[in-house]
Amino acid sequence: MKILIIGAGGTIGKQVAVALKEHEVITVGRNTGTIKADISEDDAVERLFKQVPDIDAVICVAGDSNTDNLSAITKAQFMVGIEQKLWPQINLVLSGMKYLNDNGSFTLISGKMGDLPIRGSSGKAFVNGAINSFVKAAAQEMPRGIRLNAISPGKVLDIDSNALVAAYLICLETDINGEIVNVGYQKN
Amino acid sequence: MKILIIGAGGTIGKQVAVALKEHEVITVGRNTGTIKADISEDDAVERLFKQVPDIDAVICVAGDSNTDNLSAITKAQFMVGIEQKLWPQINLVLSGMKYLNDNGSFTLISGKMGDLPIRGSSGKAFVNGAINSFVKAAAQEMPRGIRLNAISPGKVLDIDSNALVAAYLICLETDINGEIVNVGYQKN
Repeated sequence: MKILIIGAGGTIGKQVAVALKEHEVITVGRNTGTIKADISEDDAVERLFKQVPDIDAVICVAGDSNTDNLSAITKAQFMVGIEQKLWPQINLVLSGMKYLNDNGSFTLISGKMGDLPIRGSSGKAFVNGAINSFVKAAAQEMPRGIRLNAISPGKVLDIDSNALVAAYLICLETDINGEIVNVGYQKN
Repeated sequence: MKILIIGAGGTIGKQVAVALKEHEVITVGRNTGTIKADISEDDAVERLFKQVPDIDAVICVAGDSNTDNLSAITKAQFMVGIEQKLWPQINLVLSGMKYLNDNGSFTLISGKMGDLPIRGSSGKAFVNGAINSFVKAAAQEMPRGIRLNAISPGKVLDIDSNALVAAYLICLETDINGEIVNVGYQKN
């Protein structure tokens, strides 16, 4: 498979890129990777797919969000998650679904705080909840056999690398669609 | 109780306002209600709480979102939900928690598409998912015994008015906190 990994320079991205090295992996990052691109720019996704044709799978492990205690958090902090993690991933699907190969797959990233938030996580929680519901909705409308799922990781330090890679392989290689795959925690 | 109902002119708001008439209800709406206010304006919430002191409960049944088939939906349509339903309700809590009476409650509104989306609902689904996760997170940090919950209604025409009112009474009168109360549908 020809696989685009967006955010391949991060902790999760590095592990996934190594594990998939039998495939043709093209790494994308703002500052690192084969291709430099910032997918929070609206037209970056369109440019990316035109630059790299014939993609079978897109894994996005990029996306910042910002949080603080509720009594201190600002609108600007909430907007980081919308502008850097939520909208770029929605845009990746909306734009990318026109270019991705038949029977390809998108694997987005959300996070444990969407399901099981703790104190001080509201700026992360709402973004992850939004991504999960978007995936469940949008997966029903993917064209040409394309599938759309999300990995919802727990705290990165709590995640076993084998479990992480296994979750990505499930998204890449099985027929699941519209699923949120938890890694590093159990959903209640 | 002194209860502020925001969006009281809508289908749900009207039913709730009637059912709570033994309380002191103050209705708020963009175009209808005792007080005219558009809570999508950032400082409207602050103004509202200063204008109406001594509030025990806030029920928000206001909030537009916009959707379309995934192949046609635009960024502008996604942003309607963020700007008209998600951020105003987050802002309502962030600003209002400073003013609401001790042991008061916020009851926000999300919707079935966050849990059980159908085709063509992505512009609504992600907003509702975001609100649900925000409520679960932020409820843990409410000061002075204040509680925060959300009602997640199904299709308005499918909802029994008694069930709807019962759900609001659970949020107002019991000690639940951080809960998403479904009305008019069963979550899988």
